[in-house]
Amino acid sequence: MLTAAKKVVIITEATIEEKVIQLLNTLEVKGYTVHRSLTGKGERGIRSGLGGLISFGENICIEIIVSDEHKALAIMEAVYNKFLAKNYAGIAYLEDIRVIRPEKF
Amino acid sequence: MLTAAKKVVIITEATIEEKVIQLLNTLEVKGYTVHRSLTGKGERGIRSGLGGLISFGENICIEIIVSDEHKALAIMEAVYNKFLAKNYAGIAYLEDIRVIRPEKF
Amino acid sequence: MLTAAKKVVIITEATIEEKVIQLLNTLEVKGYTVHRSLTGKGERGIRSGLGGLISFGENICIEIIVSDEHKALAIMEAVYNKFLAKNYAGIAYLEDIRVIRPEKF
Repeated sequence: MLTAAKKVVIITEATIEEKVIQLLNTLEVKGYTVHRSLTGKGERGIRSGLGGLISFGENICIEIIVSDEHKALAIMEAVYNKFLAKNYAGIAYLEDIRVIRPEKF
Repeated sequence: MLTAAKKVVIITEATIEEKVIQLLNTLEVKGYTVHRSLTGKGERGIRSGLGGLISFGENICIEIIVSDEHKALAIMEAVYNKFLAKNYAGIAYLEDIRVIRPEKF
Repeated sequence: MLTAAKKVVIITEATIEEKVIQLLNTLEVKGYTVHRSLTGKGERGIRSGLGGLISFGENICIEIIVSDEHKALAIMEAVYNKFLAKNYAGIAYLEDIRVIRPEKF
């Protein structure tokens, strides 16, 4: 009933959401979900939504479900190399999931 | 210390949140978490929160933790058959997790 | 290319966000992401964002990525014992993930 798939999760700076989405589109990603208004702490310092001085640095989380690991790795490499390696804070990771009726992605 | 459990994730259209919750209640789901104000792209087109014309289509993500796979599958099948198979955009998937002190669910 | 890691997820009451973050800082957590404005149902009753009477009880989700299970367990135990065991609603669980270029955490 369930089919194994991969979920790629990208957490990065909200300011580059549109650029990351554009990159995903060039990779022929069929679907993704964007979580906004996240905050966090990472290697580039605290991004606080608690009312502090540093509310400028909100994060987003983009989740992409793909059918196989090869595709997942291609997405992660592309996003890492273009955005996360040098210029923007963020992380990309992969989770194993199982999807019901996977014909949609 | 940790106990294996399953997390069911349902991503679908925000307009049916209440209906999905009602269905979960009939399935005797003890707890769930709802993430709102998501946007995304899927088989029914782009739902953008980036200020575009199509802000009507926001998504939600409902996460349910259950103790065993049988219960997880029952929830996924019910939600899929009632909402996702024909009438609404969305996806349902399952993740393996390990919970601390699982007496709560 | 990918390295195994652990994601700790803590879902609890929004009112204790700052206290949980302070505890994480004492545990030398290098990074975390906070999802806000969640609602849910759990052992302490319904917390609804659907416009009902009970909008006071919003939840947060804090995600922490660490390199090994030992560190993940220490975080979960500390949060459970200080907050979730008695005084606040919530759950803590762990997921296996794989991270690209893990030097950041």
